[in-house]
Amino acid sequence: MTALEKLKKAQEETNSLICAGLDSDTEKMPPHLAKKGIDGILEFNKTIIDAVSSHVCAFKLNFAFYERYGAEGFEVLKKTFDYIPEGHFKIADAKRGDIGNTSENYARACFEYFGADSATIMPYMGMDAAAPFLKYEDKLNFLVTLSSNPGSEDFQRLVSNGQPLFASVLEKAISVSKKENLGFVIGATYPEELEHIRESAPERVFLIPGIGVQGGRIPEVISANKGGPCLIAVSRAIIYASSDKNFAEAAEAAAKTMKEEAAS
Amino acid sequence: MTALEKLKKAQEETNSLICAGLDSDTEKMPPHLAKKGIDGILEFNKTIIDAVSSHVCAFKLNFAFYERYGAEGFEVLKKTFDYIPEGHFKIADAKRGDIGNTSENYARACFEYFGADSATIMPYMGMDAAAPFLKYEDKLNFLVTLSSNPGSEDFQRLVSNGQPLFASVLEKAISVSKKENLGFVIGATYPEELEHIRESAPERVFLIPGIGVQGGRIPEVISANKGGPCLIAVSRAIIYASSDKNFAEAAEAAAKTMKEEAAS
Repeated sequence: MTALEKLKKAQEETNSLICAGLDSDTEKMPPHLAKKGIDGILEFNKTIIDAVSSHVCAFKLNFAFYERYGAEGFEVLKKTFDYIPEGHFKIADAKRGDIGNTSENYARACFEYFGADSATIMPYMGMDAAAPFLKYEDKLNFLVTLSSNPGSEDFQRLVSNGQPLFASVLEKAISVSKKENLGFVIGATYPEELEHIRESAPERVFLIPGIGVQGGRIPEVISANKGGPCLIAVSRAIIYASSDKNFAEAAEAAAKTMKEEAAS
Repeated sequence: MTALEKLKKAQEETNSLICAGLDSDTEKMPPHLAKKGIDGILEFNKTIIDAVSSHVCAFKLNFAFYERYGAEGFEVLKKTFDYIPEGHFKIADAKRGDIGNTSENYARACFEYFGADSATIMPYMGMDAAAPFLKYEDKLNFLVTLSSNPGSEDFQRLVSNGQPLFASVLEKAISVSKKENLGFVIGATYPEELEHIRESAPERVFLIPGIGVQGGRIPEVISANKGGPCLIAVSRAIIYASSDKNFAEAAEAAAKTMKEEAAS
């Protein structure tokens, strides 16, 4: 089964387009777990995974939140990947991309060591930097194209040959990849652009971050996406729905609400 | 002492512009070390560091080569950083860059956990993705601007407002940063562009990769760089100068030759 097939199956089984992002941070976690430090993060992740699994099709692990703890953090990251239920789609949100032999090792880390179904990759260094990820033909990668942050204005919108950089990235990437193997990260914070991008790439899977804290709204995203294959990534608005002892119930309720919002 | 001051001091003391990249890979190492796996990598790194320290001012650790081994790899990466002599400049070649709270954690990993003097960062997501790295005012970061790989043609050369993307990146980055805090990665494989870029940024430190295996040549780089502050990064051509038991002597000889080439 390819990663794309796994994703479709997970979405059918959970009836959900929501991907929960485990941006787990001791500074925002309930105090009784935060005080356990790195062990508290693993406990937090397991509790959140148990609580939200029936409402989300995927989990996205943002490497930065684990790297800051070095080797111990990577151990927790690995244990979290291993804890995710079999049928759920697993994203290594690492945003890597470098010259060939370097990207090859980053791809190995994401797919062979951590066992992810999917990795996020950076386009700046060109498609040869993405190639080692694309060589894993049964994996589904996501190329950062239009990001959700204010800084996406700095370079992604510079116009050349009559189109913004992000559109050139999309065009070039589509020309050298298959839909089963490469999707795109498109921020929820720019629904108008999302709509245009969807028209240029009707069959590609979009990973759509920026819901909640960053300002994106699910109904707008669903409308702009016009029913194309997608994952709506929500991190803080689910995992920190409460910072109290009831955080698991609050996360479950938040995930359920978002699932329903995305399905309606 | 700021990282820039440390770099200048290291360059004076070693009389060298060369930065040795520890892209250590069991597949290319001498067999007697390769067969020890991850422990062999640490032994290899220590031996190379001892052998080349008097001919290089800096060491650059490419995270990918360690990440592929997960938590154990990160341990070796940390031990390698710790083994580098006090006065040598240490670069976390991680090429990170993501939305603010994520980049904040990547910066913590590079500077607080690994204790690097410097990190490489990616521009695609804009300058707010670089900001958490720049907040460490005593560190010297390098923003990937014109990379050394063939894929740099894909997007970095797209022209908008009369200049290629890499020039827009340079211009924007200079406008929001100080020379003590931000330099640029400029590939050795495009000496003509290097010359133009040097003219636009006479005082910025350039980290120049792509020598040797990738095709860049030191005399061309030195000529194009016009005496501006720089680090010439050489990885495979030093550390794999021999894949035999004499690899340390071969690495030392290669580093010495390159140091002299860069000084002449």
